Amino acid sequence: MAKGTGSLPAPAIPALLCLPGRHSPGSQRSERHDGAERAAAAGRRSRSGGAVADQRRSRRGGAVADRRRSRSGGAAAAGRRSRSGGAAAEGPPRCRSVPGGRCCGRRTLRSGGTARDEASMGRTLVELFYDVISPYSWLAFEALCRYRHIWNIELRFRPAFLGGIMQQTGNKPPAMLPKRGEYLLKDMKRMAKYYQVPLRISPDAFQHIMGTSSLTAMRFITAIDMTNPQYLEPLSRQFWMCFWSQYEDISQPENILATARQAGLSEELSQKALEMASSPPVKDRLKDTTTEALKHGAFGMPAVVAHYDGKPHLFFGSDRLELLGSIIGEKWLGPVPSPKL
Amino acid sequence: MAKGTGSLPAPAIPALLCLPGRHSPGSQRSERHDGAERAAAAGRRSRSGGAVADQRRSRRGGAVADRRRSRSGGAAAAGRRSRSGGAAAEGPPRCRSVPGGRCCGRRTLRSGGTARDEASMGRTLVELFYDVISPYSWLAFEALCRYRHIWNIELRFRPAFLGGIMQQTGNKPPAMLPKRGEYLLKDMKRMAKYYQVPLRISPDAFQHIMGTSSLTAMRFITAIDMTNPQYLEPLSRQFWMCFWSQYEDISQPENILATARQAGLSEELSQKALEMASSPPVKDRLKDTTTEALKHGAFGMPAVVAHYDGKPHLFFGSDRLELLGSIIGEKWLGPVPSPKL
Repeated sequence: MAKGTGSLPAPAIPALLCLPGRHSPGSQRSERHDGAERAAAAGRRSRSGGAVADQRRSRRGGAVADRRRSRSGGAAAAGRRSRSGGAAAEGPPRCRSVPGGRCCGRRTLRSGGTARDEASMGRTLVELFYDVISPYSWLAFEALCRYRHIWNIELRFRPAFLGGIMQQTGNKPPAMLPKRGEYLLKDMKRMAKYYQVPLRISPDAFQHIMGTSSLTAMRFITAIDMTNPQYLEPLSRQFWMCFWSQYEDISQPENILATARQAGLSEELSQKALEMASSPPVKDRLKDTTTEALKHGAFGMPAVVAHYDGKPHLFFGSDRLELLGSIIGEKWLGPVPSPKL
Repeated sequence: MAKGTGSLPAPAIPALLCLPGRHSPGSQRSERHDGAERAAAAGRRSRSGGAVADQRRSRRGGAVADRRRSRSGGAAAAGRRSRSGGAAAEGPPRCRSVPGGRCCGRRTLRSGGTARDEASMGRTLVELFYDVISPYSWLAFEALCRYRHIWNIELRFRPAFLGGIMQQTGNKPPAMLPKRGEYLLKDMKRMAKYYQVPLRISPDAFQHIMGTSSLTAMRFITAIDMTNPQYLEPLSRQFWMCFWSQYEDISQPENILATARQAGLSEELSQKALEMASSPPVKDRLKDTTTEALKHGAFGMPAVVAHYDGKPHLFFGSDRLELLGSIIGEKWLGPVPSPKL
């Protein structure tokens, strides 16, 4: 991939991930989009039921097709598109699923914001502490990405290190209990289908986790969060795609760079982030975020921390979003909701 | 409590448990009810929003009031009411929350039925393996009791022994991890409120579990299931009330008898069941049910086993009912749904 062509995320990630269902005309803010032609086309598709079609495609193996495309040069293709689409190098990547990039920009706070900022804006701050090695974190991530357009919440991504949380709390991977391991394979498969997230379950999924350290990947993600937070969402999603859909080894530098490329980062930015990943500021930042999750009571991931009634409240797992909604006065509409019209 | 007055469950259990929300006139089959006057009165209350009032009452401490009433002779009061209500001794107890007792009778198979029976009736057989020492089992129990009136399912209660499942699978109580224990106390409290189940969380809830064996209680429940299955539902619910709301010691014979009394069983029937509880047939039956849960893959409780696509499928926990619904083509309407009108 040529240098400086990384501003648009590659289409390796199915468009349905962020915001399936109908989009309101008001959300199609194509004037803010760099690639106006693509946005208009996407808008038309969306209005005529394209998102629904995407969902259907996903059920019939669309995710597999996407993976295949990804393996056979999807990133390069994205690079070509990027060059012809006129996007500025290193510009903020916007979610391809919503014209105008609303999905990636709106209602997602970067690390600079504070809980007080949120309170003053009348929205509930919801922090998602996650590690890309955690499959259920992916489900929570996608569901929350969808709900930030529907619920009055401010979503903040908090990349942390699951290994540190497990070690500090004395927790063990749930699949170490054989019967639970057997069950979790089935549960993840069913949940992924229901959440319409292309998480692929292989019988050796747990060996895959146990044999991989996500430390370098999470440091890399942290470096990007610190320097180019606009890439945090597509990069995290692409790591899940590579690890949990394509079963690639995300612990190796070359694979980390490939993942970043597929997420739309330029070669230059990726190389810089990889170098930064082993620097004390990045290591400390990841440690601090992990420590913060622990302070909130986390013992695993995903750890969703919602700020209401003047304090933080932990919700563990991807299956407490309905409960969270009920407490903050928002309605759960299933894992694939339609946004407000 | 006088002999032969046990046909009506005592009102220690809040009326909202089984089926909150509006009831359709069609469901008020008071002609089938033994105490016609009470049924008519309940029907009027229901039509004028009594169930909603019950929910409100519960939120404002109705459960506490109910507990108080239970401790101060609620069972005796129920006995008096029973005598004047004209119910036959040892007759099937019907749920007080729905006039006509529809809640306890319809769509709940006793142990005699088979999966084939269900398939031939076009309904999905859903088995709930539970132990009254498990708080999340109570949530699943009440939610499924509500959904059997809404989803096209046949619900079958399968009392089993959690201790046996933990021992056979090598599983440990989740609260043994201190951080998870802290979280679970909060989670149970929030979930109980959301599910409108009067589960009361005390800081020493886990010591309460760890210091109690449910073996005799589950054998007692099994004896009732074998001899008078029509009491299985109210009796199980009352055990949860006693253990998880009133924090009583359900391992002691005198408390087991008191619980049975509060559930509407006669002294004679309770005594007989208590004697049976230590007999080989009852012990074997509880063992067999526990073994069956293990064969389905259970490693904890609640274990919901749904029969579709020609085989059983395990769903662990009280938080997979939405997923189950999506698979069998039924819509999740939250833990407190309104029945079909």
